Amino acid sequence: MKKYTLAALLMAFTTVLCFAQNAQTEIKEDFKPSPKNQPGKEYPQVNSQGYARFRVEAPDAKSVVVSLGLGGQGGTVLNKNEEGVWMGTTAGPMDEGFHYYHLRVDGGVFNDPGTHNYFGSTRWESGIEIPAHDEEFYALKDVPHGHVHQVLFSSPSTNSVKTAYVYTPPSYVKDASKRYPVLYLQHGWGENETSWINQGHANLIMDNLIAEGKTDPFIIVMTYGMTNEVKFGGLRDFKVDDFQAVLVDELIPYIDANFRTLTDWENRAMAGLSMGGMETHAITLNKPEVFSHYALLSGGIYTPEQLEGRDKPKLIFISSGSKENPDRVNSAAKALKDAGFNAVSYVSEGTAHEFQTWRRSLYQLAPMLFQ
Amino acid sequence: MKKYTLAALLMAFTTVLCFAQNAQTEIKEDFKPSPKNQPGKEYPQVNSQGYARFRVEAPDAKSVVVSLGLGGQGGTVLNKNEEGVWMGTTAGPMDEGFHYYHLRVDGGVFNDPGTHNYFGSTRWESGIEIPAHDEEFYALKDVPHGHVHQVLFSSPSTNSVKTAYVYTPPSYVKDASKRYPVLYLQHGWGENETSWINQGHANLIMDNLIAEGKTDPFIIVMTYGMTNEVKFGGLRDFKVDDFQAVLVDELIPYIDANFRTLTDWENRAMAGLSMGGMETHAITLNKPEVFSHYALLSGGIYTPEQLEGRDKPKLIFISSGSKENPDRVNSAAKALKDAGFNAVSYVSEGTAHEFQTWRRSLYQLAPMLFQ
Repeated sequence: MKKYTLAALLMAFTTVLCFAQNAQTEIKEDFKPSPKNQPGKEYPQVNSQGYARFRVEAPDAKSVVVSLGLGGQGGTVLNKNEEGVWMGTTAGPMDEGFHYYHLRVDGGVFNDPGTHNYFGSTRWESGIEIPAHDEEFYALKDVPHGHVHQVLFSSPSTNSVKTAYVYTPPSYVKDASKRYPVLYLQHGWGENETSWINQGHANLIMDNLIAEGKTDPFIIVMTYGMTNEVKFGGLRDFKVDDFQAVLVDELIPYIDANFRTLTDWENRAMAGLSMGGMETHAITLNKPEVFSHYALLSGGIYTPEQLEGRDKPKLIFISSGSKENPDRVNSAAKALKDAGFNAVSYVSEGTAHEFQTWRRSLYQLAPMLFQ
Repeated sequence: MKKYTLAALLMAFTTVLCFAQNAQTEIKEDFKPSPKNQPGKEYPQVNSQGYARFRVEAPDAKSVVVSLGLGGQGGTVLNKNEEGVWMGTTAGPMDEGFHYYHLRVDGGVFNDPGTHNYFGSTRWESGIEIPAHDEEFYALKDVPHGHVHQVLFSSPSTNSVKTAYVYTPPSYVKDASKRYPVLYLQHGWGENETSWINQGHANLIMDNLIAEGKTDPFIIVMTYGMTNEVKFGGLRDFKVDDFQAVLVDELIPYIDANFRTLTDWENRAMAGLSMGGMETHAITLNKPEVFSHYALLSGGIYTPEQLEGRDKPKLIFISSGSKENPDRVNSAAKALKDAGFNAVSYVSEGTAHEFQTWRRSLYQLAPMLFQ
């Protein structure tokens, strides 16, 4: 039973909220509501430079702080204005894409009532979206859309009924005889089976890629990966065995029985972000006969030695944000290519250990799968 | 274009949080976490009598109040204990089932970080579940489960892409030639297309009924009903026309094209709770050729006069909680039966204008549909 070193875990999971460099420029007053706001909510807002502005009503509070802010400064402190409303703007522009956050109100942790909630850090958190220059690839457009199925499957190994989300492409309902390859796609630590849809827009990325003819359609399956983390936070003792049993022995047979899948090795892939990459790494090595395509998104690397003495996987995809460890990702792919593997690295420019890196990684990965 | 009177709206939408009568009895110290809590969260808790106990960390706050409480008393005031944690217990037992609530912390409205969030009152609210004596009928059991599909459909009339949730029964994936009747099921004011699944457990109610052989399987479609309420709260000006166009001209054709439905009049039903009942009432009267089964759940009544001069609907189902207006519901059904209609009334014992009434109503309604 493999255990992961604390150093590897810290490397993989420490989320550094990075800000761009031009914090000295004048703030443009073109703020608009964040696309992740609840219906009708004007705040939080984002401007064209990537600054975020917050507004919180708590007239009798002593202190309201937003957890998003320049690294090491403990977030953005809001100030009470003449109307008794707390307001404040980040000290600098934020990276493009999605960021989790919460409020600290008089010492208590609460969500911002302005935003939708996103499961991260083992709880439903607030979220804000900094519109990205490439946001079109995950935008909701008037193209044919696949379905996202919430399915409930029996898990005898954990004596429970578990949830998974299954993306089926637009063509799935059109031809009742066609079968599809399947990508098993895992979230990161503290997230859950909703994260790749709600934060990652995996379904919209696929719908748009398919509409443009850039990828062949396939099914994506997402389930909860912290099987043995009932108490949370026990990452030092993280073991993949419990999750591997749910995924390989229970979920895959359920999916193959309830969806029109191609069930051979060539047509089954596994990918994951951060902790989900660690799970992908461990399970693909433990079960080489199950998956043929492997992808680690900000979630470690493979070495040629780890893959010795087995059938070569059809594809190894390794990615990270440019603010993470791009050199490690690029050199790992080179070493794999030099050893004769079909390996690809991808670096998301200007992003850190956050969902914009993983949205872009999926966008790059999808067309390479099952070719 | 029909407008609804303010009196009818107040009748339909005023949520009275009713407490049972025995507020003087001793409080049993058998509190357990509410089933609606976030993973690993110990509070809020509920005891076997239906009392709820809250715990909120906000060490520097001046005041924390829970919106749930005895009518007219403005909720449950929490007190700060020696550890600096705010705690408090409702003044009496609460009705069985699901209740929305929020916190007021130093005058600001926030959700309780202990619970999942549920869309109600036009925002994501906290929720608590008082275990009911009949909770088995909506419990998650190890029976065959249907899928809940999130679908995105094009809505030219609103120039947008809209979301619907579609429940398909467990047998749907087993026989690719079988077609099913469809129930269009609407939420109440301030709720949305997630409410019948998250709060109502409509999918689990169906899974359990089907597993016990108590109902024939059918499809349920749920979408957002406040089409023209972009600003919210403009209920005095509520008009059904915009939603009717989305439902009848856009959603039904999408569903019939993308799911294996029976598309004739006999096999299409509409039901709704509260405002969704008002919408059902209006649309079934406007479009008698579209729906054959009508159900109003705490959402008004039909009179024989309203149904004159048209084909008789196959079923009219009218329900409410016993703490709402059971006499009106029963007498309306009697008048319809006397006039030769197949009308049924149902009264949920001991519940008010809340989801336990509507869960039970769906449980009663489902076996009567499409017979």
